[in-house]
Amino acid sequence: MILRDVGEKRIVEMITSKFSILMDDCAAIDEGDEYLLITTDMVYEKTHFPAEATSYQKGWYAVAVNLSDIASEGGKPFALNVAIGMPRNYEIDMLDELLDGIYDCASLYNVDVVGGDTKETDFLTISITVLGRVGKDRIMRRKGAKTGDALFVTGTVGKGAALKMNDMEKLMLVKPRVNEGIEISKYGVTSCMDLSDGLASSLHQLAEINNVGFRVYADLLPFDEIAISSGDETEYALYHGGDFELLFTVPPEVGKQIRRAVDAKRIGEVVEKEKGIKLILNGEEMEIENRGYEHFVS
Amino acid sequence: MILRDVGEKRIVEMITSKFSILMDDCAAIDEGDEYLLITTDMVYEKTHFPAEATSYQKGWYAVAVNLSDIASEGGKPFALNVAIGMPRNYEIDMLDELLDGIYDCASLYNVDVVGGDTKETDFLTISITVLGRVGKDRIMRRKGAKTGDALFVTGTVGKGAALKMNDMEKLMLVKPRVNEGIEISKYGVTSCMDLSDGLASSLHQLAEINNVGFRVYADLLPFDEIAISSGDETEYALYHGGDFELLFTVPPEVGKQIRRAVDAKRIGEVVEKEKGIKLILNGEEMEIENRGYEHFVS
Repeated sequence: MILRDVGEKRIVEMITSKFSILMDDCAAIDEGDEYLLITTDMVYEKTHFPAEATSYQKGWYAVAVNLSDIASEGGKPFALNVAIGMPRNYEIDMLDELLDGIYDCASLYNVDVVGGDTKETDFLTISITVLGRVGKDRIMRRKGAKTGDALFVTGTVGKGAALKMNDMEKLMLVKPRVNEGIEISKYGVTSCMDLSDGLASSLHQLAEINNVGFRVYADLLPFDEIAISSGDETEYALYHGGDFELLFTVPPEVGKQIRRAVDAKRIGEVVEKEKGIKLILNGEEMEIENRGYEHFVS
Repeated sequence: MILRDVGEKRIVEMITSKFSILMDDCAAIDEGDEYLLITTDMVYEKTHFPAEATSYQKGWYAVAVNLSDIASEGGKPFALNVAIGMPRNYEIDMLDELLDGIYDCASLYNVDVVGGDTKETDFLTISITVLGRVGKDRIMRRKGAKTGDALFVTGTVGKGAALKMNDMEKLMLVKPRVNEGIEISKYGVTSCMDLSDGLASSLHQLAEINNVGFRVYADLLPFDEIAISSGDETEYALYHGGDFELLFTVPPEVGKQIRRAVDAKRIGEVVEKEKGIKLILNGEEMEIENRGYEHFVS
């Protein structure tokens, strides 16, 4: 049997069960009053980067997607290291631009680039690891959502439409919600994850971990302007990657505080598992399907 | 200009200067009384693994080379995470074996596998990051060797001959010198690095950082039995990778304590830079060349 036969989700399950890892955005290592957070994302030329993206944008993106994982746990990132695989005919100037992108994104979030590795590979491969810290009383995990909780999302959704609209800056220069994550972690968030695989996929993952369902109201979704101009905003918001926003649940009584503290909107609520995962559109209930980008099969 | 025109060493210089990184085996993050050590090594199917190597051996190797970097600073490793890129036609059973190799090597050194990432790539690519800790008074860096110091190496040298002799177990199931690193760090080691690129390359790197030269006595080199049986022990010991031993310098008066504490041998001494980097063989002085495996050009 080969990987394509089982798909990314079952492969991840196989790995997490072998190592007894919690399925979450970061690993959290107990350090007394705090957790040391560690996360790694590997990005690969052929699957992650459109041909039009610049080297600077690729470097930025590789850092940003990792910072987003730290953000989703309420962590403050402080250090990263980077392993870069490149072909031997890679241009020095492109490497220089790539490093600038890495440096600028890290600097914007006060993260030190502390070390790394370079190897020869056939296609550009960037594996970044970010370290962060979060207080034990503040950490936000995927597990914890309860029926009756309000469902929130930061920023806007549907930014994956930037691929169709060929807006590389919007697509690649991702702004991870680090400050928002730290801020909302003060208000008793019950579960949180980032939207990297699309809203639908994230909802299904949260539903499974928490044994709950969701109701999402289409007219509350904060569609990004690029999603609206694409004419396909619901499809992009639900089923495409590209939004590195935080999706989280809170007890309904803190909703007002959340909205005052950060740019986040209530888009629905947590319901009983039996009610499923539904989108309410023009007064009608529609199933939110469990699809999004999946490695090895997509 | 492309990467092949400049080679790995100049690329690493370019990256370390851009990020103001110290050129060392690990990054060390100040945590009060201790340093948090972090290191990453990316290994790639086509450049790192002989066709005969098993998946189990590849997983083990990918962990071991990282632990060796922690060992060379005197650190105690405690956690790792792993990003794996694999083609979609990769066999599930091979992944399972690979994970076993990762798990077994980590477990032998009491290191927890805490998290990871999987992506689809064209060739197997494993990027592992290991965290460790070391007391501030114990850390061993590359810089610090002084003229008159004794030069030591742990274990045996020339194990890269295992490739020629087709001994995959010996080549791949590397035993990083974690306990030895912790032990020798008690005795005022002045500089240390691991031998991953071969003894000659490591000596040249230590010489440059410390502005010194070295004299190495061929009849003191602890050749591995596989190097001897290959008939080319000096070549393998000096100019091939495959020995993940610790190369270190200490004030000559602690030599006896070092030999009692760990399996390490004095192989030479630190001399003035002007005297160069020499091998003493049958009473004659020979230049130790600055060559070994270099990515992008080899």
